[in-house]
Amino acid sequence: MTDVLTFGETMLRLSPPGTNRLEATDELAVYPAGAESNVAVAASQLGAEATWLSKLPDTALGRKVVRELRGNGVETEIVWSDAGRQGLYFVERGTAPRGTRVIYDREDSAVTTATAAELPLDRVREARTFYTSGITPALSDALAGTTAELLDVAGESGATTALDVNYRSKLWSPEEARETLTGLFPSVDVLVTAIRDAENVLGYDGDADEVAAALAEEWGFETVVVTRGEDGALAWNDGTIYEQEAFETETVDPVGTGDAFVGAFLARRLAGDAVTDALAYGAATAALKRTIPGDVAVVTREEVEEVLGEETAEIAR
Amino acid sequence: MTDVLTFGETMLRLSPPGTNRLEATDELAVYPAGAESNVAVAASQLGAEATWLSKLPDTALGRKVVRELRGNGVETEIVWSDAGRQGLYFVERGTAPRGTRVIYDREDSAVTTATAAELPLDRVREARTFYTSGITPALSDALAGTTAELLDVAGESGATTALDVNYRSKLWSPEEARETLTGLFPSVDVLVTAIRDAENVLGYDGDADEVAAALAEEWGFETVVVTRGEDGALAWNDGTIYEQEAFETETVDPVGTGDAFVGAFLARRLAGDAVTDALAYGAATAALKRTIPGDVAVVTREEVEEVLGEETAEIAR
Amino acid sequence: MTDVLTFGETMLRLSPPGTNRLEATDELAVYPAGAESNVAVAASQLGAEATWLSKLPDTALGRKVVRELRGNGVETEIVWSDAGRQGLYFVERGTAPRGTRVIYDREDSAVTTATAAELPLDRVREARTFYTSGITPALSDALAGTTAELLDVAGESGATTALDVNYRSKLWSPEEARETLTGLFPSVDVLVTAIRDAENVLGYDGDADEVAAALAEEWGFETVVVTRGEDGALAWNDGTIYEQEAFETETVDPVGTGDAFVGAFLARRLAGDAVTDALAYGAATAALKRTIPGDVAVVTREEVEEVLGEETAEIAR
Amino acid sequence: MTDVLTFGETMLRLSPPGTNRLEATDELAVYPAGAESNVAVAASQLGAEATWLSKLPDTALGRKVVRELRGNGVETEIVWSDAGRQGLYFVERGTAPRGTRVIYDREDSAVTTATAAELPLDRVREARTFYTSGITPALSDALAGTTAELLDVAGESGATTALDVNYRSKLWSPEEARETLTGLFPSVDVLVTAIRDAENVLGYDGDADEVAAALAEEWGFETVVVTRGEDGALAWNDGTIYEQEAFETETVDPVGTGDAFVGAFLARRLAGDAVTDALAYGAATAALKRTIPGDVAVVTREEVEEVLGEETAEIAR
Amino acid sequence: MTDVLTFGETMLRLSPPGTNRLEATDELAVYPAGAESNVAVAASQLGAEATWLSKLPDTALGRKVVRELRGNGVETEIVWSDAGRQGLYFVERGTAPRGTRVIYDREDSAVTTATAAELPLDRVREARTFYTSGITPALSDALAGTTAELLDVAGESGATTALDVNYRSKLWSPEEARETLTGLFPSVDVLVTAIRDAENVLGYDGDADEVAAALAEEWGFETVVVTRGEDGALAWNDGTIYEQEAFETETVDPVGTGDAFVGAFLARRLAGDAVTDALAYGAATAALKRTIPGDVAVVTREEVEEVLGEETAEIAR
Amino acid sequence: MTDVLTFGETMLRLSPPGTNRLEATDELAVYPAGAESNVAVAASQLGAEATWLSKLPDTALGRKVVRELRGNGVETEIVWSDAGRQGLYFVERGTAPRGTRVIYDREDSAVTTATAAELPLDRVREARTFYTSGITPALSDALAGTTAELLDVAGESGATTALDVNYRSKLWSPEEARETLTGLFPSVDVLVTAIRDAENVLGYDGDADEVAAALAEEWGFETVVVTRGEDGALAWNDGTIYEQEAFETETVDPVGTGDAFVGAFLARRLAGDAVTDALAYGAATAALKRTIPGDVAVVTREEVEEVLGEETAEIAR
Repeated sequence: MTDVLTFGETMLRLSPPGTNRLEATDELAVYPAGAESNVAVAASQLGAEATWLSKLPDTALGRKVVRELRGNGVETEIVWSDAGRQGLYFVERGTAPRGTRVIYDREDSAVTTATAAELPLDRVREARTFYTSGITPALSDALAGTTAELLDVAGESGATTALDVNYRSKLWSPEEARETLTGLFPSVDVLVTAIRDAENVLGYDGDADEVAAALAEEWGFETVVVTRGEDGALAWNDGTIYEQEAFETETVDPVGTGDAFVGAFLARRLAGDAVTDALAYGAATAALKRTIPGDVAVVTREEVEEVLGEETAEIAR
Repeated sequence: MTDVLTFGETMLRLSPPGTNRLEATDELAVYPAGAESNVAVAASQLGAEATWLSKLPDTALGRKVVRELRGNGVETEIVWSDAGRQGLYFVERGTAPRGTRVIYDREDSAVTTATAAELPLDRVREARTFYTSGITPALSDALAGTTAELLDVAGESGATTALDVNYRSKLWSPEEARETLTGLFPSVDVLVTAIRDAENVLGYDGDADEVAAALAEEWGFETVVVTRGEDGALAWNDGTIYEQEAFETETVDPVGTGDAFVGAFLARRLAGDAVTDALAYGAATAALKRTIPGDVAVVTREEVEEVLGEETAEIAR
Repeated sequence: MTDVLTFGETMLRLSPPGTNRLEATDELAVYPAGAESNVAVAASQLGAEATWLSKLPDTALGRKVVRELRGNGVETEIVWSDAGRQGLYFVERGTAPRGTRVIYDREDSAVTTATAAELPLDRVREARTFYTSGITPALSDALAGTTAELLDVAGESGATTALDVNYRSKLWSPEEARETLTGLFPSVDVLVTAIRDAENVLGYDGDADEVAAALAEEWGFETVVVTRGEDGALAWNDGTIYEQEAFETETVDPVGTGDAFVGAFLARRLAGDAVTDALAYGAATAALKRTIPGDVAVVTREEVEEVLGEETAEIAR
Repeated sequence: MTDVLTFGETMLRLSPPGTNRLEATDELAVYPAGAESNVAVAASQLGAEATWLSKLPDTALGRKVVRELRGNGVETEIVWSDAGRQGLYFVERGTAPRGTRVIYDREDSAVTTATAAELPLDRVREARTFYTSGITPALSDALAGTTAELLDVAGESGATTALDVNYRSKLWSPEEARETLTGLFPSVDVLVTAIRDAENVLGYDGDADEVAAALAEEWGFETVVVTRGEDGALAWNDGTIYEQEAFETETVDPVGTGDAFVGAFLARRLAGDAVTDALAYGAATAALKRTIPGDVAVVTREEVEEVLGEETAEIAR
Repeated sequence: MTDVLTFGETMLRLSPPGTNRLEATDELAVYPAGAESNVAVAASQLGAEATWLSKLPDTALGRKVVRELRGNGVETEIVWSDAGRQGLYFVERGTAPRGTRVIYDREDSAVTTATAAELPLDRVREARTFYTSGITPALSDALAGTTAELLDVAGESGATTALDVNYRSKLWSPEEARETLTGLFPSVDVLVTAIRDAENVLGYDGDADEVAAALAEEWGFETVVVTRGEDGALAWNDGTIYEQEAFETETVDPVGTGDAFVGAFLARRLAGDAVTDALAYGAATAALKRTIPGDVAVVTREEVEEVLGEETAEIAR
Repeated sequence: MTDVLTFGETMLRLSPPGTNRLEATDELAVYPAGAESNVAVAASQLGAEATWLSKLPDTALGRKVVRELRGNGVETEIVWSDAGRQGLYFVERGTAPRGTRVIYDREDSAVTTATAAELPLDRVREARTFYTSGITPALSDALAGTTAELLDVAGESGATTALDVNYRSKLWSPEEARETLTGLFPSVDVLVTAIRDAENVLGYDGDADEVAAALAEEWGFETVVVTRGEDGALAWNDGTIYEQEAFETETVDPVGTGDAFVGAFLARRLAGDAVTDALAYGAATAALKRTIPGDVAVVTREEVEEVLGEETAEIAR
């Protein structure tokens, strides 16, 4: 039994120190990174029992992924593979006018061959919430099929199913994404999407509240969350729109902000919080994530609640 | 003979690199840290002969403290102890909305058992200024007594005595602090207090100038310095109020700012500067401290005077 | 249900880089360290489900301990405490004629107040093997009582109970250790002791095989393992003596060697291996541990079996 | 055959990590640094074949310089010397109100004795553009003569000759600089000067466009570029003034900004770009340089063009 | 015109600090690594003009490879590709009984699609010596064909062609290797092989001198070099056997030893040295390589000659 | 009043991490280094009050030297200079067959212009022992004269004067050294020399005991110490020869071994130890120095006595 089970790929992220250039660095820091495990970490930090399900190469690199996720409070359910690589990606942080640059190196990773047949479906059936992102079906045809099967299995066993569109232009075209993702929508209860992806990928124009309502109506979602970066987020739930502003931050590392938001939102919803409260937790967790190097939100619930409740002192002593 | 003798605890501060999270770091930087030694370092950098008096465990950790303080220009007068720990504290830097977080780990440190009988009182008698902070008597009953005795010894031998209220809520309640500290006030010539502590601990409401005057009148202090963070500081001296704005900074590490202010103020007063000049030196030293990692102000008098005198160039070459 | 449950203290170990001097370092590496969690890690790496039971301060430091142990494959069962410190120790590596030096800073750690009443005894009852070391009862009177109770609970529920004498002269005298530990012996099935401790603490002279047999006879142990450093180890089991040589190593960090041995031995015994095989796994795991910085054995079963089976190539590619 | 050949000194720059103080650091990062090689690197990154000509000590330090410049895409033409030092300089980064501080340690470096006779003048003759800065003739009387000779050689063989005034007050007085540099002006086609140097060293008052025009008229330059820091730059070319604003940056390291500007400007002019386009490339390259630790602009032409063309995304993935 | 042109793959090697475990490290050092570029570096350090020819992805990672090789004195001739990965490999150093472990992650690297048609064959034709290793044809069928074509082109234009068998069991079987490599032998002038590969892959049993002679006779090689690890190397040349002992070393990093040997041997042969002298240079360069972290031999000819000529002092000052 | 006053140059030593190559490193560690301050540190650690007298540039680099020496327990007496450099040297550690390589960069350092007139001669007069090495007079003609004057001043005020020949071939020829040093001998009470220098520089052949006796007889020294590296040391004192073996070490950094020996020897002689005991302390301190990175002996008297008294345990806990 787990509160939140997520399925997808976790890469090892390799980053130069500070804002050094990737091509000039002699040293790389190693972090775990992947939308679904990022969500699991945030959910775990906010009080949910979270499990990450995947397939990894049976090497020191695959073990490194498990080590990091377990260290961050997540249970791991792994199919160990003799074939397939460990997915990698290189992230270089830059200040303006340089942005943060990413090189993906995840082709042929072990998870791209994962089939429902080899995965422990009982763990999926036991989960209260099942989450994956639009990255997973984009990784391979096999994974697209597996994602669909897992959503069905989860839905049939009564779990809430959640999907974050998370469009990645380096993986597929908007058209491919729309076709595959809308094919999954009937199995999805909670949809998360950036306003940009709603427009460019799914084809929904308008203000965020209109987009959320239109998506909910067309596809029958229980909840639709639309994120708008610095402009905050909103959720449509059962006919009502709830808005949430973003917290101001002095950003150290922007990667993983959206996943921190979703993980916290799901965990607080599971804990029985109202949509408006869950959105606030999501926004505060996302804000803290931006102050932390790496992709995952190393935060505590108490810290999130400090952000929610009051101004944090410059020095807490 | 020494210009400024300070008495109190120096901890080893352990901090993760940059803004990394303490619970996720594999590496800690080590710094010397303690209000009284911070003051001694700042006083030394601004031209005073400064000595730090204390009790330390006779271990590599205690020797590390002496090594760092001597390296920063302070003489040390140490009672080496086979009992008692080396006080530690953990500081994690965060950007907004994360603040800087502190975990104290200083209980049962060697200095908590320091008695006047074992300390070299002749060194106290030779000092021109004796300084301690409200942290010292808060550390143990023994130290509360020792602090009182040293203030008396210093006062009787003609030294100027200075006390910074420096209230720490993790060490005692406002009521305990008020009772103990006001018991010391008759032996104190120069009182330093944050406006916040004046109100919450000492019970003086009002604007900073009113608070300073009221404190001076009630207790007969020669000088009262009231600090107000970003709003600067002011001093009451001999019936006159002197105001000093804070300098703008791009902060790297805020810890130790107040101590840098006090050390520079005391050193310049000892050098014969007027109150208004000493305040300016204090504010400039404090501003520089905020740009330097760790608790102590690694600055030169020339650098302080550059801040005072003019805009610093982006590159000085 | 867990294969091996261990109970005791895990400290954070702080070490200068390489062979730098502690008093001159500006940087400390952080490792998890504690006999019982070291054993749990080794057992886990060798295939057992291992759980570490303890009490930790509810701070980033306590969370760091859990993070590290979970990362190393161990489940943690923690009583979180608002009182008590996180135990620390400082380890400085030196080459000859400097040895490795240790400063313990573990007094008043949270675990020293752990009582059976607050611990989840059901987890103890579910374990197949319960392990603790002689360090645990030495930490406080409360812990001495708790250790005795847990051994009883484990024994009554049918678990194999194991105790490593692990005498630490900085914690208690040989006489105190002997009195407390022999008081526990009736509840112990598997005793592990260094030959040196058997003589100096328990008062058994003679060759290792004689010592093992004498201990087994006097106290009715199922198994007695006697370790002899570079001279290897032997086990008395059911009247028979089994000997195991130590593997040659080029040592990087000797701390934790004995715990790696015990964890591997227990795991392989649980897996049904004969004593002689379990001893060999113990010795090979211990040898690998000596090549790894920190206290825990970051190894895989495959690596241990390479050491057992053949000469390792200089480069495996 | 090379597009841009530059002649001057490259130092090794030694800098503490982050904003640490030089006097308190135990660690220094090593970077290549020198106006002429900085220009060569920027020119090379923007598409020109660039060669740096100089004299270096035949030691690991001299080889380090070549290693770094070749790594940054520059060809090196070196006279190896058994006499003379490797020039060094120490750069400490500070945030406001601390600035970036520089200690030069370049006296008696090997290049100060370089003579035209020992340099491979054929390489100068093959260059399409020859560049040096006002630092080079300031380093020694010998170098002042050599600089004049090389400018003549380059000019006679049809190369465009470029000179950046680059006044350094630690090397000579404004009067000395003016006398020497104006002596070189008849051999110079493209003059680059900070507005500040134009006034204080060359004695030209007025707005930047007036200064540029006055310089061009008096000395017959083909092109005069006047840089104004945050206020951008402008160029006089063939009677027309072209203006270029500076791009906004979040600065990590300001050193080398001007050289990045010049290198990109020269490279784009050589590639046939109009003055206004070359200025834009210069400004964008300079902006990127400010985000990169060290003196040289580790950028690609594509990155420069992203700055020119559009807003960079916070994360490019 | 270049003295030595090598063709093959250069990977980025990622290694934990010191002897840390890969699965537990948070930091990786980055080095260039590849038999053919290792050979080019060693040849360059020993006085030859060396060029490395290959195909790389047009990313910061590909540029990193060029940066490193140019920094090490090698010219690079690159086909930049929009497709294909940058090859990686992970190297973990261990002391006995742990060996050095390698994880290759080089599949689908850009070079695997390199064709003779896209490579600058004129550069091959200008080379005095052309070198590749048995790794190159093992990487893909395309590369096997390209390797054969380049050997032919080089041979036809009069270059000496050299091939190191360099068998890698993770890339192909001994049978596949034998078939492909012996197909190349008619185009090869200088064959290098480990005695182990001669036996296991090529099927030549016997002492090293017998193996060398048999290979030379069967295939008509000008020179056959057989390496024997700690037992040194020997060469058959024109009917004569030359033996060379290995130098004793205190090894820091054994990877790349053989390539350092070959690069030095080829460079000294090109410089006109006798076989026996070239072997000695090879052995001394290989010995120095073992003291240097990373795959390439950062040495000077003077240092190699110190090893050849005399005992090196503990401190040279 | 000080026990040991030493006069000479302290450089900043810059070293790559571990055994990395200087020409390939991006990072340098900073250490204080100089024969006379090394001796002062060792003397201080062994219980003497030690002062180092010198002239330094008034920069962050000069302040770094004072910071380090004060941190190591030495008092500093400095003439601050606006002219002259901070002496530097680069040390690269290598394992066999690479040795440790040194590049000096100390020309024109501030101390080379130090005159007796500007130095505080009263501090020399108060010292019980005055020490310098043969490096000091080799640095400049001015320093040769100053050294002679200080030896005279010290001798006239009753101090014991000590000189270590410490021949450096990069500074002067054996003939120059002999002429200058023998000119100082009449003012020297304790002569220290390596057996190698005694032969090559001073021209004394024979076994170490014969050399010591011959030197003592010819020049009337009170004590002559002859060091023989791994073969230990001996002292002639008042007609008797005392021998001391070297302790076996696993060397981390050999630089500064001789200075550690001399500092400990002088400190123990001052404390009243017999020659034979002082030699033993010297040898043990030297042995510990070899295990410590950098030039100075960061040791305690207790650690030295552990080496003297018994075998050190692998782990002391």
